[in-house]
Amino acid sequence: MNLLKRNKEFSLAQVMPMILPLDEGAMKLACQRQDNLTKPMGSLGRLETLSVQIAGITRQALPRLQNKVVIVMAGDHGVACQGVSAYPQEVTAQMVLNFLRGGAAINVLARHIGARVVVVDMGVASDLQPHPDLIIRKIAYGTRDITSGPAMSTPQAEQAIHGGMQVVVNEMERGLDILATGDMGIGNTTPSAAIAAALTGLPVDRIVGRGTGVDEAGLQRKIAAVQRALEANHPNPQDGLDVLVKVGGFEIAGLVGAILAAAAHQRPVVVDGFISTASAMIAVSLCPQVQSYLISAHASQEMGHRTMLKWLQLEPLLDLDMRLGEGTGAVLAMNVAEAACKLLSEMATFNEAGVSEKAER
Amino acid sequence: MNLLKRNKEFSLAQVMPMILPLDEGAMKLACQRQDNLTKPMGSLGRLETLSVQIAGITRQALPRLQNKVVIVMAGDHGVACQGVSAYPQEVTAQMVLNFLRGGAAINVLARHIGARVVVVDMGVASDLQPHPDLIIRKIAYGTRDITSGPAMSTPQAEQAIHGGMQVVVNEMERGLDILATGDMGIGNTTPSAAIAAALTGLPVDRIVGRGTGVDEAGLQRKIAAVQRALEANHPNPQDGLDVLVKVGGFEIAGLVGAILAAAAHQRPVVVDGFISTASAMIAVSLCPQVQSYLISAHASQEMGHRTMLKWLQLEPLLDLDMRLGEGTGAVLAMNVAEAACKLLSEMATFNEAGVSEKAER
Repeated sequence: MNLLKRNKEFSLAQVMPMILPLDEGAMKLACQRQDNLTKPMGSLGRLETLSVQIAGITRQALPRLQNKVVIVMAGDHGVACQGVSAYPQEVTAQMVLNFLRGGAAINVLARHIGARVVVVDMGVASDLQPHPDLIIRKIAYGTRDITSGPAMSTPQAEQAIHGGMQVVVNEMERGLDILATGDMGIGNTTPSAAIAAALTGLPVDRIVGRGTGVDEAGLQRKIAAVQRALEANHPNPQDGLDVLVKVGGFEIAGLVGAILAAAAHQRPVVVDGFISTASAMIAVSLCPQVQSYLISAHASQEMGHRTMLKWLQLEPLLDLDMRLGEGTGAVLAMNVAEAACKLLSEMATFNEAGVSEKAER
Repeated sequence: MNLLKRNKEFSLAQVMPMILPLDEGAMKLACQRQDNLTKPMGSLGRLETLSVQIAGITRQALPRLQNKVVIVMAGDHGVACQGVSAYPQEVTAQMVLNFLRGGAAINVLARHIGARVVVVDMGVASDLQPHPDLIIRKIAYGTRDITSGPAMSTPQAEQAIHGGMQVVVNEMERGLDILATGDMGIGNTTPSAAIAAALTGLPVDRIVGRGTGVDEAGLQRKIAAVQRALEANHPNPQDGLDVLVKVGGFEIAGLVGAILAAAAHQRPVVVDGFISTASAMIAVSLCPQVQSYLISAHASQEMGHRTMLKWLQLEPLLDLDMRLGEGTGAVLAMNVAEAACKLLSEMATFNEAGVSEKAER
């Protein structure tokens, strides 16, 4: 099944109706099996509910997550000139090279769990050398500075979402049973915080955190930058695309497309930390049904993340005080999701194992 | 290195001085490397601190956790006759067979992460058929009912601890870089709660939970049983061995030995949920230094578990609402520990990757 394959003309409007409610029948079968496996009912906790959700997403009573893929989208941000990051902008491109050489955290973790890393240039501010493992979907050399106007044009946002969808469509050809989202972009906690503030309507200082580790002065610059971005752009909280255009980023937009396409293909999406969660918020505001396809990987240390998860009505699986991005938390959680599905499929039932069931008292 | 090998005479008193403080030099080297890896400092959160702890435990600046072992100790409990479990006692033996056939949750999870499962009969109430993968260290056919007297004699407790040590000594021969603890024993949340109440001095009703899932009447029976066990036995909270003898269990005692032996061999110990944590409390009360070798796998749903972890000064890695035992949470956490060590060893440094470091402002 590859619903979008070679349909060069597919658009947001075409993809959204393909994102269906979860399959109640598969979920019921998965639930029944969970209750017959050799363990006290419910004793595997979130591993049980996770397996049932994935059954519903995949329409399979016994889902298998063999092909695990993390898509790491990279982009630069005009707002970096406002001194909102602890690192210089060239680190975005340098880290993309690090991903391609296999030396970054995401590479190590993906190797550990047997996942494929897909690196996409959505809008890095420099030209990257061609590399067999680098997908180039560059929209521009970074966004514009959101403190004085929109990050991108509407056609650019649509092109970036489409590009993200197309990456998933192509990866489906190689095998993709579950998607983890990842990001790289110096300065990208700032647009992510702006997205969260715009969509939740909460005060900026309750959402903006220290990102890669700015000091107190840097934090104040970030808060001021997000405040100015909202005042300069007036993003419409009822319109996810408008929020994305005005205060988003190219890697954030690419992830929106990837999330929507994965859901349209009935694949679970493991959402990483702060930036990926901002993408998920845009995706859900464009298409509320996509929420049921999402698995929140972990609670990021970045301040506003819990607030964003609350808005999305998602409970993070892990809480390891991480705040790196790249999809690192998502890959660890994807491994837990795979374990949950294996438990559902591979454990013996009481009957098969000849184990006595709970005594009736 | 196999410190205890073929020393048939080793005793608790001999092992305890072998449990040394963590190696500060290895920890310092690991810390320094963490700060030079291509990520914002501290952004891998608990994965960083975990890798440093394991460096200290193993005396290796770049520890590798190749041979992962979960030891599942099984035993029965006289107190089961008080109606403290939702399952009949024969389930202990039936589940041991399920472990040996590979159909239990612990088997699925161990296969998932590439760990070896070692099953030990410490005191199952029936004779188990010999099986190449079953280690028999049976002390007796279950403990005595703790509501009216001690669970076991002092020599039995010492024999069980020694048996647990010997299992680890033998597994060291096959390769053991990290140990996860697991348990099976119908009724064993009751002695575990009694151990926790004895050592913490807290009221019984703050510690006793529903175990495999007893109803409200069953919960009241459990609370009463633990209360009577404490009143009948007066375990001395200053003396871990006395607590174990009076209100413990054979699988709990075996795990105490396994934990102590692993620490003596400079191996990290991932402690599973409620029952394993009770074992860890006994181990720490016998030898406080062992605390630094422990990694708490997860927060169990069982009520008193957080209290026990607080007493141990351990912070659980995961919280997946699990309450199964068998080492299921420990195996998932062991996989995280392995990932943490791989990150430390395999990630590129800023220098190696040509990535710019944090800007000085």
